[in-house]
Amino acid sequence: MLEKITITSPFWRERQQIIAKEMIPYQWEVINDLKQVDIAVTNTGGDSSALDSDKSYVVENFKVAAKKKQGEANPGKRGGMVFQDSDAYKWLEAVAYTLECQDAPELRAKADQLIEIIGAAQEDDGYLNTYFQVIEPDRKYQSLYMSHELYCAGHLIEAAVAYTMATGTKKFLEIACKLADNIDANFGPEEGKIHGADGHEEIELALLRLYELTKEERYLKLAEYLLLIRGQDPDFFTAQQRRDVELGRKSLIPGLEIIHPDFKAPYFQSDKPVEEQMEAKGHAVRVVYLCSALALGAVLTGNERLKRAADNYWRNIIQKRMYITGAIGSTPHGEAFTGDYDLPNDSVYGETCASVGLIFFAHNMLRERHDGAMGDVMEQALYNTVLAGMNLDGKGFFYVNPLEANPYLSKVNPGLRHVLTRRPGWFACACCPPNLARMVMSLGHYVYQTKQDTILSDLFVDSCAKFNLAGQHITLKQSTNYPWEGTIAYEVQEAGAAGFKFAVRVPQWCEHFSLKLNQHELGAGAYELKHGYLYLKEHLHQGDLLELTLELKPMLVEADPRISADYGKQAVLRGPIVYCVEEVDNGANLQCLHLGADLEGHYEDKLLGGVYVLESHGQRRIRPELGQEIASPLYRKVQPAQFEEQLIKLIPYFAWCNRSEGEMRVWLNPQP
Amino acid sequence: MLEKITITSPFWRERQQIIAKEMIPYQWEVINDLKQVDIAVTNTGGDSSALDSDKSYVVENFKVAAKKKQGEANPGKRGGMVFQDSDAYKWLEAVAYTLECQDAPELRAKADQLIEIIGAAQEDDGYLNTYFQVIEPDRKYQSLYMSHELYCAGHLIEAAVAYTMATGTKKFLEIACKLADNIDANFGPEEGKIHGADGHEEIELALLRLYELTKEERYLKLAEYLLLIRGQDPDFFTAQQRRDVELGRKSLIPGLEIIHPDFKAPYFQSDKPVEEQMEAKGHAVRVVYLCSALALGAVLTGNERLKRAADNYWRNIIQKRMYITGAIGSTPHGEAFTGDYDLPNDSVYGETCASVGLIFFAHNMLRERHDGAMGDVMEQALYNTVLAGMNLDGKGFFYVNPLEANPYLSKVNPGLRHVLTRRPGWFACACCPPNLARMVMSLGHYVYQTKQDTILSDLFVDSCAKFNLAGQHITLKQSTNYPWEGTIAYEVQEAGAAGFKFAVRVPQWCEHFSLKLNQHELGAGAYELKHGYLYLKEHLHQGDLLELTLELKPMLVEADPRISADYGKQAVLRGPIVYCVEEVDNGANLQCLHLGADLEGHYEDKLLGGVYVLESHGQRRIRPELGQEIASPLYRKVQPAQFEEQLIKLIPYFAWCNRSEGEMRVWLNPQP
Repeated sequence: MLEKITITSPFWRERQQIIAKEMIPYQWEVINDLKQVDIAVTNTGGDSSALDSDKSYVVENFKVAAKKKQGEANPGKRGGMVFQDSDAYKWLEAVAYTLECQDAPELRAKADQLIEIIGAAQEDDGYLNTYFQVIEPDRKYQSLYMSHELYCAGHLIEAAVAYTMATGTKKFLEIACKLADNIDANFGPEEGKIHGADGHEEIELALLRLYELTKEERYLKLAEYLLLIRGQDPDFFTAQQRRDVELGRKSLIPGLEIIHPDFKAPYFQSDKPVEEQMEAKGHAVRVVYLCSALALGAVLTGNERLKRAADNYWRNIIQKRMYITGAIGSTPHGEAFTGDYDLPNDSVYGETCASVGLIFFAHNMLRERHDGAMGDVMEQALYNTVLAGMNLDGKGFFYVNPLEANPYLSKVNPGLRHVLTRRPGWFACACCPPNLARMVMSLGHYVYQTKQDTILSDLFVDSCAKFNLAGQHITLKQSTNYPWEGTIAYEVQEAGAAGFKFAVRVPQWCEHFSLKLNQHELGAGAYELKHGYLYLKEHLHQGDLLELTLELKPMLVEADPRISADYGKQAVLRGPIVYCVEEVDNGANLQCLHLGADLEGHYEDKLLGGVYVLESHGQRRIRPELGQEIASPLYRKVQPAQFEEQLIKLIPYFAWCNRSEGEMRVWLNPQP
Repeated sequence: MLEKITITSPFWRERQQIIAKEMIPYQWEVINDLKQVDIAVTNTGGDSSALDSDKSYVVENFKVAAKKKQGEANPGKRGGMVFQDSDAYKWLEAVAYTLECQDAPELRAKADQLIEIIGAAQEDDGYLNTYFQVIEPDRKYQSLYMSHELYCAGHLIEAAVAYTMATGTKKFLEIACKLADNIDANFGPEEGKIHGADGHEEIELALLRLYELTKEERYLKLAEYLLLIRGQDPDFFTAQQRRDVELGRKSLIPGLEIIHPDFKAPYFQSDKPVEEQMEAKGHAVRVVYLCSALALGAVLTGNERLKRAADNYWRNIIQKRMYITGAIGSTPHGEAFTGDYDLPNDSVYGETCASVGLIFFAHNMLRERHDGAMGDVMEQALYNTVLAGMNLDGKGFFYVNPLEANPYLSKVNPGLRHVLTRRPGWFACACCPPNLARMVMSLGHYVYQTKQDTILSDLFVDSCAKFNLAGQHITLKQSTNYPWEGTIAYEVQEAGAAGFKFAVRVPQWCEHFSLKLNQHELGAGAYELKHGYLYLKEHLHQGDLLELTLELKPMLVEADPRISADYGKQAVLRGPIVYCVEEVDNGANLQCLHLGADLEGHYEDKLLGGVYVLESHGQRRIRPELGQEIASPLYRKVQPAQFEEQLIKLIPYFAWCNRSEGEMRVWLNPQP
């Protein structure tokens, strides 16, 4: 297994530094209300005007809950969304991964302080959720469709697992286990317990990770139970909704009715038992959090029902419902999946969190299947949608990640008003920024995996990794300037006498690669290509230098013609990086651009923090001066198309919206 | 002026007969609740589940109001939308135009009976609106942003004007004048009166028409006042909204909050004085009803401010915000206009009523400007969106008229759920069906206009028309099989010795035409082409036979490249008829079709009630079996496109959705 990895890649180090130096301290100030931030309206359809626009309440809520627990008469006000606690947990999880990467005593002190506050808020029976503790204690575990109680618990547990692994301290883990025990006491097949799960999946994955750390079988069983109870009673959530309405309880999402057309059983993945769910329906983040747990649950339990459910979801999402950028979720209504091949580029949701979840899903599938295509998905989502979720300076975040944007249309067309063309500093529903932070800070966990006596290289990241492979200590230095260059050198700095087996993912976009071992070209006989991995036939030994060169050239990609939105268009990729055009480089009306026959690139170190740009001698369609009009100057008899030459400049999609506000587009017209 | 016109065109007679024999009796049963109808949810965003789904209450409401007026303790229940009364008025208006076309004593009796009931409900001071009379008498004229009181009044007045002109009876006109007088007593510049107008324009046009009939100057002044007060106080409607919230009053649209993001000043065209409104904003029907009144007001008053406002609106709508089908309103959110060149084909609203209103606007502009391009717009909206608003059997109606539809996507994508792919029998908000009925039944009023001593032929409709031109009696028989054939023969059956001047609109789509007078070809010297009309230099006299032949051939049309949704695509027109492809003829995945080089047509009398169909030897793009995948089988390295030959069948757009439910598309790919 991997023991430690140090990321040295300038590309990733820079992003991790921005997160460690900018985002995490910024988020600390936000969750502690140390600074006023301009909080953007969410895109959930909820009414954020019901929330204070200048206060997050995150940490204060725990203090209020603690005071209430102590019996103080006026403990203070609990504010924010029902799932506000999770912002603290995701911040702590990002801190945990940061502490894995670097010493940061001040940050550590802040985290320990926050963990104390959280612990003080936890009730004696282990229950922990500031909303229900402070506002509606009689409603605990009764409105699971939207309470986010186990969702928040899951984020606490994931953070505690990461924090324990990074620091070795136990305090946070104790809180987590106590909370998990409370859930175990309340949910399960036994009579008197709740026979259902949370409306927002997350606890399942968290319990599996807690089991991996603690080896406590109860957590594994509970996770398996929560996964398999889902959808057994399709009316489970809707019955709770009806009961809440009968009792005159208020909606847990301000501005949205309890019984709402977007919030039916499929929204919660509960219309059928999981292994019978053949299509990704409902809230995209919920779906991929469920899927991540299904895949990991299958690894840890071998349960065929979990495996089948994960397979069905994987097939439907990857084969029919994913954007080229690794974005998922085609509609803002319920932040949800829609249908097969329905992938509009402009009205897409493509939530940052959903692509983070897709990476979890792909990674957990990869752990069981060792299929490189799953690594391709992971890489596609990471380098495109997830990175696009933040400004290059780490100070602004996207919730929605369109493949086609136009500030004017976002302003005038309400069907596009969820598509922002400036990254706001914070959101009332602030799930995405900390999710992105924990993803990028934990990148080291995605670079390699081990499978018995084999090390598999999944991501290409300049780094130094230490493994313990059945008692054998291995140190592997990976040197690369990926994603801008395609050469990856693996230097075995340390290994036992037996050496080890090694495999590298060869991405599907790579048409040609070459391989050298200690300067000697390796022929096809030296390796086997299997399920997207190149397996070396010989073991690697200390001192070996393996050099893989992936041919990295711009590629034109087309979509399945059943995707109407992309029909007749082409996307430009170079390696995993999806490119786009922006108005600032190419002028307005980007739909009029046609790529040229060439596509040349170069690295520009001054642009957008250093990116490889592509250029094409293309053309721009111009509107003819004259022409026979049909009732309106908008419509004319077809005449030969007129073009003017234009050098089209493409930048990596992840870097869009870091200069002046304007149009952006991924799918382009081909050469006319 | 035109004295009488008899429509003999099989194309139009058939539609008028369906309306007279099917729709009007059907609507009578609906408004009288004589039959249970399956009422579709509206697309306004309102919650029609708050309404009885099987009862319209239209006529009953008047009876209830009359009983309440008589002081009955339990007069009964008033039901339906706040503007439910208008359904009765639009029905009566359609009946009036029907009585112009044919004797129908039974229908006349029903109408007279309904007029009695309406009269019985009218209060002594002239006020008439069943919602406010029965449910909230203390709220009269206080919630004008959404009360529809003057809107309903306008429909009553329009119906009364039409009924009076058709039957010569005065009863209905008396009710109308009494109601207009009530409005005059309550609205106006004088102190103590309301200095504002209705949130939904309609009264303005109605008062102008009432003035035209009665010559009562007060009505003209009141109309002018209501037009010009609009937007003088941009807070007029929003202040009423705030006051209603303060008073704890309920929303007048069930399910929609009083203060709602869709219902701000621009939604009501009240953010600026009308002559400063440079863009069509807000609710599309409101906009065109306003515009129709501005244009007619300009004709009747000569007021330059009205003229300028009408011009600004015309320019913006026609040059930047209209679909090729004459549909307007790009979004279901507020049933509204969005922005310039924003004309999505799939998520469009394109309300039938809005295109009816656009025809009113175009017709009133035409009355003043005599610009054939305005007639072209009128014709485009009439033959495409308006006719598409009903099933060929007259038993189903569209509210929304997409240019691209897919039943699967309408089901799975909530952003498209307003786009129905079957015409429902009725709507909870039933504005469109009776609006369409009155439009088609009044068609005769749009065929000709007179301008001093000239008769202008605007629409090509087989008919016989009688004019009184400064005392001279003229009978003009128009013979044509338009829109399927392009020859139009005008036979002067009666005229005075002086004869008369004559002009014919030559549509912009017509590239070549020929003209014969009494079998002799007329050269270019015999006429003048001016602003879209061909003016004969010589007078026409009794016995003259003028034959105009418009070359009618299929034409490929392209959109302004700034319309992103249509970029690179072509629409097929033949004369004013826009064509479309349907799944039933061409299979699914219509986005994969490419037109061929040819486009041949023939008339099929057995198909869709008799239509001219077009066929093209085109191609269908097929998905290659293999190809280098990028993370998903959805995305592949570009390879040469593969096609299979397919004979593409196109039908007139207005006839879509009359066979099996399936995909439909207007904008098609060109030859590859």
